[in-house]
Amino acid sequence: MYYDPVETMDRAALESLQAERLRQTIEIAKRSPFYAERLKGLEPGDIKSPANITSLPFTTKDDLRNQYPHGLLARPLDDFVRLHASSGTTGTPVAVFYTQKDLDTWADLMARSMYCCGCRKSDVLQNTSGYGLFTGGLGIHYGSERLGMLTIPAGAGNTKRQIKMILDHQVTVLHIIPSFALYFAQQVREAGYDPKDMPWRIALIGAEPHTEQARAKIEQLMHIKAYNSYGLSEMNGPGVAFECVHQKGMHLWEDAYIAEVINPETGEHVAEGEVGELVMTTLTREGMPIIRYRTRDLTRFIPGECECGRTHRRIDRIAGRADDMMILKGVNIYPMQIEQCLMAMPEVGQNYLIELVREGVSDQMRVKVEIKDEYFVEDMRALQGLQKRIAKNLCSEILVTPRVELCQSESIPKAQGKAVRVVDLRGKE
Amino acid sequence: MYYDPVETMDRAALESLQAERLRQTIEIAKRSPFYAERLKGLEPGDIKSPANITSLPFTTKDDLRNQYPHGLLARPLDDFVRLHASSGTTGTPVAVFYTQKDLDTWADLMARSMYCCGCRKSDVLQNTSGYGLFTGGLGIHYGSERLGMLTIPAGAGNTKRQIKMILDHQVTVLHIIPSFALYFAQQVREAGYDPKDMPWRIALIGAEPHTEQARAKIEQLMHIKAYNSYGLSEMNGPGVAFECVHQKGMHLWEDAYIAEVINPETGEHVAEGEVGELVMTTLTREGMPIIRYRTRDLTRFIPGECECGRTHRRIDRIAGRADDMMILKGVNIYPMQIEQCLMAMPEVGQNYLIELVREGVSDQMRVKVEIKDEYFVEDMRALQGLQKRIAKNLCSEILVTPRVELCQSESIPKAQGKAVRVVDLRGKE
Ligand SMILES: [Zn+2]
Ligand SMILES: [Zn+2]
Repeated sequence: MYYDPVETMDRAALESLQAERLRQTIEIAKRSPFYAERLKGLEPGDIKSPANITSLPFTTKDDLRNQYPHGLLARPLDDFVRLHASSGTTGTPVAVFYTQKDLDTWADLMARSMYCCGCRKSDVLQNTSGYGLFTGGLGIHYGSERLGMLTIPAGAGNTKRQIKMILDHQVTVLHIIPSFALYFAQQVREAGYDPKDMPWRIALIGAEPHTEQARAKIEQLMHIKAYNSYGLSEMNGPGVAFECVHQKGMHLWEDAYIAEVINPETGEHVAEGEVGELVMTTLTREGMPIIRYRTRDLTRFIPGECECGRTHRRIDRIAGRADDMMILKGVNIYPMQIEQCLMAMPEVGQNYLIELVREGVSDQMRVKVEIKDEYFVEDMRALQGLQKRIAKNLCSEILVTPRVELCQSESIPKAQGKAVRVVDLRGKE
Repeated sequence: MYYDPVETMDRAALESLQAERLRQTIEIAKRSPFYAERLKGLEPGDIKSPANITSLPFTTKDDLRNQYPHGLLARPLDDFVRLHASSGTTGTPVAVFYTQKDLDTWADLMARSMYCCGCRKSDVLQNTSGYGLFTGGLGIHYGSERLGMLTIPAGAGNTKRQIKMILDHQVTVLHIIPSFALYFAQQVREAGYDPKDMPWRIALIGAEPHTEQARAKIEQLMHIKAYNSYGLSEMNGPGVAFECVHQKGMHLWEDAYIAEVINPETGEHVAEGEVGELVMTTLTREGMPIIRYRTRDLTRFIPGECECGRTHRRIDRIAGRADDMMILKGVNIYPMQIEQCLMAMPEVGQNYLIELVREGVSDQMRVKVEIKDEYFVEDMRALQGLQKRIAKNLCSEILVTPRVELCQSESIPKAQGKAVRVVDLRGKE
């Protein structure tokens, strides 16, 4: 069951659609003052396949700031009906403009996204997100109505009233930010209800970075299935990539976007499956197309096909920002690589800490790793063996051998909501 | 220039359209559990003209509460895509459900309303209203997009950011509640701007009761034209009645609603132009039609035709609630009647106070009236003459002779934002 036949289009047809839409996008983009200059001399006809996108220049957040407010608009201001903007009263904001057609396209992508994780017309969705300039509120709202769900625009706050509405209207889908979900589960219990008895079945928990462990906790405490998603206002808002019911990465809608993963230092594509900076191009936006946008978000394409049958590739959960990249002995290392490597070992517990230290003239990485109680034995030789295996696994992933320290469970302070923890002590110890 | 040809339809055709839609509405309504019972035996064919609506029973807010949540739904729950609800965690709320078609109809009415007071596609609207369950936020938002205006969903609060957005995006239309407008004007000045230099030209200031004087003050301090409107969530939300550029009452969209003004005691229609309780019937709602809804809002139809050419009748600004009605010596009196009578006299100043007192076994009304400085002269005979004239004018309006006390200007304490002030001292003096 799919919302749109395009979701299962075969790869060759999908890529030919991407090439065609990229040519259109270049043509439209060149009507804006910014891209008229930036893409000078570039002919859409030069694009034969989506791979040719590497011949186009990047667009950065600074470009968007410098062009504020109207530099990227490819149509007269009169044609636009919506504006979203980044928050903040200081500094130059980033503004994104939408025509009515752009809003329709976005609502359809959003509806498809929610359908993908199991939402149906017969569901009742309560949107506990704030509305306004933030794209999360209105994005989910329009998509939910488009899918035909009964949509309750509850907005943020007022937990008691939220609970009453959920019960009165038998809410089956919640849009809720991860950090609020855990608090909310507790409030439901304090109000005298067992989350098991709540009518909900699906939580949409994008919008905020969170770990796989946080998701598991939300699912357990709320007795709900929680689905991750990805979006950013420069690419409309939510609905860029969404998990299907298999919860193994987020399908990125490749008929609407071309996604690339690059080495943020060199700008070159990384090998398939490797972590790097996500770069995004809009393919269906008529008002304000954006080409090769440097999101600064770190992720990777998940290799292989998904059981659900959708052909659109999946990205992994966002594990920090390109700005989080560490350089150690000339090697680029992302905290996510270390997290993935550690979490794949059954002996490793819930928490870890990465410390960068200077020893003499040389930089070193220390990784403190919590070990599950059942593996934290008195046998010194067994522990040393485990320590060596962790160091070796990490080295094969990051090409640097870190010093590994084994710790008892719950001995490393927990950091709420943050996916990775790195402490750079170089020059500070 | 009109948004929809129906706005200038001749009265005979408009009334025949109303009769047809009322028949449809009855037919649809009878599919809901509540009206199936309430309208039992009533045949739509019995309705030959909108005047026949008096044969239908009223619907009250208590009915809506008793039927919460689904008693008035004329379609399966699956067909609905939006829900708005009255606030509050205690007591039974009132919930209003919308199908996609209902949302479209509402957005069109809202777009027509804003066009009516001069908004155009080329305008930029900033919505400073909170979104969420309150119909004001999403109602204005959808209507603004429908009209094609560039819509900035700023939401409530953050005055500095609001000012920056208004300047950055050359906002020409503000949706702002009257009490925030005065504060906002002051903040603009404090931020170093002269309201004269702001890009705005239109303020939509419905949503909150306010006096004509408050409007004048907003217009003067903000250097803007401020338009009043009327709506309530039971009748979709905003967009029920809206002022045209002539600012002489609000055109009530009679192709979408049948409006009646009744004596809240007897339920009978008052004479044309007299004040009473507004009773409303939806004519274009497919999901949750409501028939002869007792709004408890007091107003009157403004006699005569409007210069703008629209044939839909105008209602006067809401002057309190039916619950404010006073009964004195067996006569129903509305504070609004007194206000209108006083404000029509050039000698009367800005403020007045109505007191109901018991003298012996008889109830009396005292009206304290501020007199403008230039009329507050030393000549006792002139003042007594004025006093008598006020009492006589009031008596011809309310059929009871009050005791009139003349006061110096600014001697009566000001009450912010409230249109009428009555103090009932009976049994308390
Ligand atoms: Zn899948
Ligand atoms: Zn008019």
